[in-house]
Amino acid sequence: MTEVVIAGIGQTEVGEHWELGLRDLAIHAIQAAVKDSGGLRPQSLFVGNMLAPNLSNQAHLGVLLADYAGLLGIEAVTIEAAGASGGAALRQGYLAVASGLVDVALVVGVEKFTDKIGADVDSALATTSDADFEAVQGMTLAAQAALLMKRYMHDYVVPAHGFAGFALTAHANGAGNPCAMYRKAIKPETYAKAEMVSDPLNMFDMAPNADGAAALVLTRRDLLPSNYSHPLVKVSGSASTVDTLALHDRKDMLAFDTAQVSADKARQQAGVTVDDIDLFEYHDVFSIYAALQLEAAGFAMKGQAWKLAEDGGISLKGKIPCATMGGMKARGFPGGAAGVYQAVEAAIQLRGQAETNQVPNAKTALIQSLGGPASTAVSHILQGLD
Amino acid sequence: MTEVVIAGIGQTEVGEHWELGLRDLAIHAIQAAVKDSGGLRPQSLFVGNMLAPNLSNQAHLGVLLADYAGLLGIEAVTIEAAGASGGAALRQGYLAVASGLVDVALVVGVEKFTDKIGADVDSALATTSDADFEAVQGMTLAAQAALLMKRYMHDYVVPAHGFAGFALTAHANGAGNPCAMYRKAIKPETYAKAEMVSDPLNMFDMAPNADGAAALVLTRRDLLPSNYSHPLVKVSGSASTVDTLALHDRKDMLAFDTAQVSADKARQQAGVTVDDIDLFEYHDVFSIYAALQLEAAGFAMKGQAWKLAEDGGISLKGKIPCATMGGMKARGFPGGAAGVYQAVEAAIQLRGQAETNQVPNAKTALIQSLGGPASTAVSHILQGLD
Repeated sequence: MTEVVIAGIGQTEVGEHWELGLRDLAIHAIQAAVKDSGGLRPQSLFVGNMLAPNLSNQAHLGVLLADYAGLLGIEAVTIEAAGASGGAALRQGYLAVASGLVDVALVVGVEKFTDKIGADVDSALATTSDADFEAVQGMTLAAQAALLMKRYMHDYVVPAHGFAGFALTAHANGAGNPCAMYRKAIKPETYAKAEMVSDPLNMFDMAPNADGAAALVLTRRDLLPSNYSHPLVKVSGSASTVDTLALHDRKDMLAFDTAQVSADKARQQAGVTVDDIDLFEYHDVFSIYAALQLEAAGFAMKGQAWKLAEDGGISLKGKIPCATMGGMKARGFPGGAAGVYQAVEAAIQLRGQAETNQVPNAKTALIQSLGGPASTAVSHILQGLD
Repeated sequence: MTEVVIAGIGQTEVGEHWELGLRDLAIHAIQAAVKDSGGLRPQSLFVGNMLAPNLSNQAHLGVLLADYAGLLGIEAVTIEAAGASGGAALRQGYLAVASGLVDVALVVGVEKFTDKIGADVDSALATTSDADFEAVQGMTLAAQAALLMKRYMHDYVVPAHGFAGFALTAHANGAGNPCAMYRKAIKPETYAKAEMVSDPLNMFDMAPNADGAAALVLTRRDLLPSNYSHPLVKVSGSASTVDTLALHDRKDMLAFDTAQVSADKARQQAGVTVDDIDLFEYHDVFSIYAALQLEAAGFAMKGQAWKLAEDGGISLKGKIPCATMGGMKARGFPGGAAGVYQAVEAAIQLRGQAETNQVPNAKTALIQSLGGPASTAVSHILQGLD
């Protein structure tokens, strides 16, 4: 099987881009990634997107973006797996290059939550849960996450504000990321006083929906331009797995099985263990997801992740640095682009280009993109090459 | 690169399934394909779907279908490329097995046009064209196809009813397909008297939107069950390419460049020429698309495809049999499932299981799935193995 390297990375600032459309955002990220790769010419485009058919009345994004990026004649397709669309698009790009059939693959994640010419955001997001048995009841993902959080707090006797560590870490790291939506650290009092969204989930326990696009150029090492100057990053493990769509069909709501299985598979393929992971980009759209992922992926015992976060274990110099560029919470949650942002940010860390946010001696990263409450989990191991 | 074979095929009848939902249809096709493969256990599921987020308020289909098919723990993702979603899903399944990373891939195409709990069908279909520059003007795909057809008739001096051959052939073949929506041959007079949809395009120049699901099990030859009894069919060529999304951005509206390029690439990979192709499953959602595909793929000179159809050249015993099980016109057009139906039907032909519709000595098939007016084209070469 062919070794796959990340030759180029690109991203837009995450936020409310009222003046830019879906295609503008994507093209910005694509052009940045192609430039960063030294001008490699992609043959295949994999678009990670979650909600454009509903929010923007726009499907067939592969063609739209290839067209506007000046890449006509390549192949292009959209990959959808709810919030994991970005991670899933990366995986398809990885498979294309790994197969030997594609020399250079371009992966772009894009989401445009503003400019709601189609459905409203809550209705659109509800399409990612079970339309017949969940969404039709009026259940939102935030309400569902609140129930999960309540259960966790009950089972593991977690105090009020026990989840503060996730938001505090994310915002501290967002301060050092020029592409983050929120670039300001917050204090414990800010978390403690935050308005409730759905008790016990407050506004700092959930990530802001935002516009943004991120892109990756994947290729083989022998195809890199001769003057390629970035430290090399390879994709050494890739795995994806699914659980039930509806949470009520799970045996144990608090076990994110897909997060565990896909992380294990990706690590096995890469030949690394939990202890080898220098940073973990989790899918913290809700702080409870972050906690359950840390536990599923083997970084904390069940019921202990909140304590790890509280004690500084997930900060840049902690045991397992997480959300190193702000995560979904502070960088923002651009839907189907989120998983691609994770890869871009991990690559920045592994290249040693993260400046004030640099994780010391970062060699191996685990990134994990979720769709729904870990109904889908896509895990990748990225490694720096000397 | 690993050889990829089609181990199992499955399909539902195409039609208006008011009593069945999206998941029911897909599960029926999946179970049939898995059974047909001798019980192979898939690791990866690629779902081809076009409009479920809009028509059924349901995204995240990979998880939904894996869940209901009893395949939890595998990986699953949705592939979207408008009308080419089915062909694109096949291509992703092919890449997964060809990469060596996946042993058994399941491809399912599914579409549910009835039960419109979400958007109306015309609005949903319009999301596949350019939302900002085409759909917003009220342009439908049928109106656009009528303009193309008018231009073709003008440039090549085609008489009224010159396109009848496509519908006559499709309906003649649909009569022998137990899964076809329309199983009755039609007479030239029926075509001539048909109501206009958008002059000069009449109701027999366009395919009916329909519900349906089709599935494929892909694997390596060495993984087939020891008692595997079907004649073997392999995927020997796979290619996809994109053109502009908006028709007004093309230099020559009547040249379906993507159909040409992807067919050439797929044939090159398979090591076959135009003359080696025994049957061609084109994407005849509109008769003008069929004509332009026949010309682009090298089976007719420019402006001559309608004549080839009129002269019986595309019938089961003609020079290049097309729409051998009824095509989109008579089998019906189940959106993102259509490209998977093409593969199922071609496999039936290559196995020699097409009964009254059997193309004599069928060894090599070209199938081509389009998104929009060939904005996307996905081509595959399937071959029977002795």
